[in-house]
Amino acid sequence: MSLLTDLYQLTMAHAYFDHGMNDIAVFELSVRKPPPKRCFLLAAGLQQAIEYLEELRFSADDLEFLRGLGTFPQTFLDHLATLRFTGSVHAMPEGTPLFANEPILRVAAPIAEAQLVESRLLNIVHFQTLIASKAVRCAMAARGKQLIDFGMRRAHEADAALFAARAAYIAGFNGTATVEAGRRFGIPISGTMAHSFIEAYDREEAAFKDFIASRPESVTLLIDSYDTQRAAHRIVALARELESRGARRAVHGVRIDSGDLATQTRAVRGIFDRAGYRDIQIVLSGGLDGYKVDELVRDGVPMDAFGVGTALDVSDDAPALDMAYKLQEYAGKPRRKRSPGKITWPGTRHVFRERGKTGEIVGDRIALDGERDPGEPLLTETMRDGRRVAQGPTLEQIRELCSRELQALPPALRDLGDTPESAPFPVRISEALQKLVAAMDADGD
Amino acid sequence: MSLLTDLYQLTMAHAYFDHGMNDIAVFELSVRKPPPKRCFLLAAGLQQAIEYLEELRFSADDLEFLRGLGTFPQTFLDHLATLRFTGSVHAMPEGTPLFANEPILRVAAPIAEAQLVESRLLNIVHFQTLIASKAVRCAMAARGKQLIDFGMRRAHEADAALFAARAAYIAGFNGTATVEAGRRFGIPISGTMAHSFIEAYDREEAAFKDFIASRPESVTLLIDSYDTQRAAHRIVALARELESRGARRAVHGVRIDSGDLATQTRAVRGIFDRAGYRDIQIVLSGGLDGYKVDELVRDGVPMDAFGVGTALDVSDDAPALDMAYKLQEYAGKPRRKRSPGKITWPGTRHVFRERGKTGEIVGDRIALDGERDPGEPLLTETMRDGRRVAQGPTLEQIRELCSRELQALPPALRDLGDTPESAPFPVRISEALQKLVAAMDADGD
Repeated sequence: MSLLTDLYQLTMAHAYFDHGMNDIAVFELSVRKPPPKRCFLLAAGLQQAIEYLEELRFSADDLEFLRGLGTFPQTFLDHLATLRFTGSVHAMPEGTPLFANEPILRVAAPIAEAQLVESRLLNIVHFQTLIASKAVRCAMAARGKQLIDFGMRRAHEADAALFAARAAYIAGFNGTATVEAGRRFGIPISGTMAHSFIEAYDREEAAFKDFIASRPESVTLLIDSYDTQRAAHRIVALARELESRGARRAVHGVRIDSGDLATQTRAVRGIFDRAGYRDIQIVLSGGLDGYKVDELVRDGVPMDAFGVGTALDVSDDAPALDMAYKLQEYAGKPRRKRSPGKITWPGTRHVFRERGKTGEIVGDRIALDGERDPGEPLLTETMRDGRRVAQGPTLEQIRELCSRELQALPPALRDLGDTPESAPFPVRISEALQKLVAAMDADGD
Repeated sequence: MSLLTDLYQLTMAHAYFDHGMNDIAVFELSVRKPPPKRCFLLAAGLQQAIEYLEELRFSADDLEFLRGLGTFPQTFLDHLATLRFTGSVHAMPEGTPLFANEPILRVAAPIAEAQLVESRLLNIVHFQTLIASKAVRCAMAARGKQLIDFGMRRAHEADAALFAARAAYIAGFNGTATVEAGRRFGIPISGTMAHSFIEAYDREEAAFKDFIASRPESVTLLIDSYDTQRAAHRIVALARELESRGARRAVHGVRIDSGDLATQTRAVRGIFDRAGYRDIQIVLSGGLDGYKVDELVRDGVPMDAFGVGTALDVSDDAPALDMAYKLQEYAGKPRRKRSPGKITWPGTRHVFRERGKTGEIVGDRIALDGERDPGEPLLTETMRDGRRVAQGPTLEQIRELCSRELQALPPALRDLGDTPESAPFPVRISEALQKLVAAMDADGD
């Protein structure tokens, strides 16, 4: 899919080729301004970004299509035929909390290569970072309750469904309903039943009975099709009947998908508890997002798990990040854009994270590459000369790193509200970087 | 990708199989409540939905994965191995304007088949309908000015970028910057240049010159990297110089991506016009959406084209539709959900569109299948016994149908505002359907 790019990447690559411009360009990917209510973002998508760079090549079919456009000379197409990504990549490990203007990923490569990969690198890293940064809000709100991704149907087509499941898992979700995501990434999958199953039967009880008979290992019954509390009573009766006939444990859980979730959950919990079924789990779903999860948990509603769908998979309150891939340096010289409202920090940069005695995150400093800093460098070399430096971490390892880093964040940031005005997370700019900007300003670029 | 589905589709299919429930189920896909500001939606994604249904089958690898879950018996897996979609599909042609509760697509098939395909059918049709319904707002606002999809980088991963380009083209966009979308769907592709190209040069003028030299057929130069109006003067000088040396037409267009677009466009237009370059086109981009396009066009700003990116590809003001796939009938009996706030119209339904003398759309009527109505039936049979009934229309034909239907809409709907309270588009419910609901209410289902 090397043609999954903006046409201008190819026309610019052609012009660079044509004029022998082949020096090293440094591009950095960062978020200029996070959306409202996002105190921090979570880096994600690096693994797929690296795979893309490793596999970049133009097939005979690709070249044939480009030839058909009639605007690329054969010499350039021949050059594309042998083009590979030969550059280096430094990046934040997936699962790392990050802040505005911090480089998430840095590419250094001959300018045509570094330019060509812009569109797809953004497309990959933007989406998973977006979803991880949304999912983590649910995870913080859930405070240990189980979270399952239910969003496939309204994710933006197939890839989005798969990578949303991955990004959510990194951020602390416990599983997904999407089978293919489970297969591809090893994420735990789980599922309940749909209203249509209940409706296909003339009586709700018959539907429950048949489902239990077919799936004795672990059934979660959907109980809001007609009357939620009546359904809970039916389940108690059914479980007793089945257990009297020797079933070990007939019903593992129920799902409530509509109505006043808090009221219904308390009532249903009461019905089960009074009947001695304290272990039947209650799963909630139906238009949930971080705020609703937060409210239910804060109110002490006795549910066990949440299915979060659309709000997660499309990041409904902020469906895009202001993420860009900017030229920082070409041929050893710092570069930056001066367009109104879009001024960026020039030069090849690094981010250092300062930690307290127990590992807690105290602040970040954006510096020029090569500056020394007592903090922990956040960008690590992941590709060199077009090859992966080391096997990346497993998804479980990424998820664990993310969990540790979240615990290390200042508590004020682990909140669903706005960035605290009183004590925003300190991201400082190094003196050397400030001097570079001043010098470029004085120079008029 | 048959495992691109929610796990519960498979567990329900297993239970249906286990209990010999194999009667015909009718499911319909519709939008319960359109997002604010959407006076109508546009059907899209049918072609991909049909392709999915035609190709549905579980591979040996799929079955191996399911076997590994340890909860599906071999008899059911053997059944899945031979399962194909054998049902029928009725659907609105792509590009059709539609309204709340109208069936967009109807599946009639043995219940396990009809159930299994829910997640992916929604995933496909939801996304393209979402984007077409967003794109049409830009198209209405642009009033004939060119519109190009620039959104790939912030679309939700690869598929979303491709299908957003397709959906936008149906709705009236003129092209896309995404090369692969051009190849796959035959959509015209176009591109300009990025700021990084300019920044890689020490002088803006040198960048312009090199780009023109390499791409003499059609260059669109980006002029807002430093000082937009100064860049326009540079381009005039450059064009004169090149033309004095025999170039036929050196610069075809410019792009402005930041700043006060209206002011800059007027100034740049003036510079070009006074120099005799009335044919240099001005393309605008940079965070544009339907509202900004509308404002610029209404204000008579002399631009020629718009590049619309993020707002289009993620449908930023409404990144999801409340679209659902509901069981309408099973074994010949109408069904419906009674969950609070989610009551639906039961039975196998049809939509008839009433037209005036010149073809203008006057109103819709949702009726039971088989009812007679003087209006035009909107659902047409597209699959029978699991096979496509006829070759579908080409993308150009779909785009033309869409354009005609937009012209036929009541003018009040061709507005970017809220649905007009005074004269909402009339969608009536047939008497027979109302009687069915009353009978089911009386019956308590």
